[in-house]
Amino acid sequence: MSHKGEMLYEGKAKQVFATEKADEVVVRFKDDATAFNAQKRGQVDKKGEMNNAITTLIFKYLNQKGVPTHFIKQLDEREQLVKKVNIIPLEVVVRNYSAGSMAKRLGLEEGIKSPVTIFDICYKKDELGDPLINDYHAIFLGAATEQELKEMYALARKINDILTELFDKVNIILVDFKIELGKTSDGKIILADEISPDTCRLWDKDTKKKLDKDRFRRDLGEVTEAYVEIYNRLKTILE
Amino acid sequence: MSHKGEMLYEGKAKQVFATEKADEVVVRFKDDATAFNAQKRGQVDKKGEMNNAITTLIFKYLNQKGVPTHFIKQLDEREQLVKKVNIIPLEVVVRNYSAGSMAKRLGLEEGIKSPVTIFDICYKKDELGDPLINDYHAIFLGAATEQELKEMYALARKINDILTELFDKVNIILVDFKIELGKTSDGKIILADEISPDTCRLWDKDTKKKLDKDRFRRDLGEVTEAYVEIYNRLKTILE
Ligand SMILES: Nc1ncnc2c1ncn2[C@@H]1O[C@H](COP(=O)(O)OP(=O)(O)OP(=O)(O)O)[C@@H](O)[C@H]1O
Ligand SMILES: Nc1ncnc2c1ncn2[C@@H]1O[C@H](COP(=O)(O)OP(=O)(O)OP(=O)(O)O)[C@@H](O)[C@H]1O
Ligand SMILES: [Mg+2]
Ligand SMILES: [Mg+2]
Repeated sequence: MSHKGEMLYEGKAKQVFATEKADEVVVRFKDDATAFNAQKRGQVDKKGEMNNAITTLIFKYLNQKGVPTHFIKQLDEREQLVKKVNIIPLEVVVRNYSAGSMAKRLGLEEGIKSPVTIFDICYKKDELGDPLINDYHAIFLGAATEQELKEMYALARKINDILTELFDKVNIILVDFKIELGKTSDGKIILADEISPDTCRLWDKDTKKKLDKDRFRRDLGEVTEAYVEIYNRLKTILE
Repeated sequence: MSHKGEMLYEGKAKQVFATEKADEVVVRFKDDATAFNAQKRGQVDKKGEMNNAITTLIFKYLNQKGVPTHFIKQLDEREQLVKKVNIIPLEVVVRNYSAGSMAKRLGLEEGIKSPVTIFDICYKKDELGDPLINDYHAIFLGAATEQELKEMYALARKINDILTELFDKVNIILVDFKIELGKTSDGKIILADEISPDTCRLWDKDTKKKLDKDRFRRDLGEVTEAYVEIYNRLKTILE
């Protein structure tokens, strides 16, 4: 059914397999969890299934709302078929509240609402620890042109608007999230990779309980439960 | 002659003194040198005199070219009288070639010419190590408004254009430099602090010999000689 060919890439959280079609790949979600540039490693029971299901719900919804994504279809509990892209080596982080590396960098506590939507770009390069950079560095590196950066920020802003509203409906604050964008063979920039509790900060609106990978990063316990909770809440309004 | 009042601030390289006028201060240049967020400390013979003289030549020249600066007049070998400003807590770094922290961050060698002028902003906060930030962070912090950032980048670009040409005339490549900007009591943004071999990377065009603070940072020797060389070359064409 999934027509999986050879494994093209094994990442920290997912594997990527070739298919018979040159422009389609299968993504397989693992239970492996890593943090702090893979210095911390572990397993989170059910994470692969949950992230596959959550990413599927979210990417389908974004597609409906006019955001171009790599998503084609879910294949089974752990796998989805997607358009193959050349990943742009920049992570785009969108932040509505202070948290994580930004809070640390600026010496601020977490959870302060920003008056403007914050966009960070990080250079995807494990050896360098995915450093924060700016647009000039990205252009210098040849990672993206000025025009491409504009498109990327516009997509990121649109995704933030859609997902902030979506999560709000299930009583969750979208604190921040990271996306990866890629170029299709015809040069179009589309959303790739995943959007899941591995790549978002999601706080319960009433209790402020963290329902994301920070439970793993910070040893807060109930990690699987958080991922299942996000899936269950999204399921009440999507699909 | 300098009408110096109480010392308002002692920094790593300079002291700032009050004067009888509320909107003027005296800046005194020391021979103290520090690097790597003051982990490395030392003294560079004649540095105070040279940086006072070089900053004087450069700020006078920038004033002539229409760049608003804090400079009023040189008082003696180590001191100058300047307009007091509220320093905007952002260092603006302008880069024409890869070097220093940027080369390290991006995993690149030094001395690669950039196709675009690169601007970095760093949050002036010693405890945090003056981290690289972006415009959104600066706005979030309240360090500057969007409009002020625009003005700051425009000033930085103009200064870079003027100084690149100036140094070129004395056979020196302006690799990068850092400026500090401040607000006068009537809200105008002007160039403050200093521009000297402490705050620039300056390479001899023919030999690529470093004629700046990297000689101190990297224990290359002939530190005083480099500062004197910059002063002597500038003197041949200025004042
Ligand atoms: N549509 C796509 N086509 C090709 N590659 C993709 C696509 N979507 C995601 N990828 C890439 O597949 C890999 C997914 O694996 P995983 O998320 O585990 O990687 P990782 O460990 O985070 O490391 P890195 O992202 O640094 O490669 C990533 O490299 C991601 O950029
Ligand atoms: N016109 C001005 N009015 C008021 N303060 C100024 C003016 N020009 C420069 N300054 C400030 O005076 C101080 C000069 O001292 P110095 O360069 O030794 O500081 P520093 O050790 O680099 O530390 P820091 O810049 O982090 O305070 C700096 O704090 C600088 O921002
Ligand atoms: Mg990944
Ligand atoms: Mg200083």
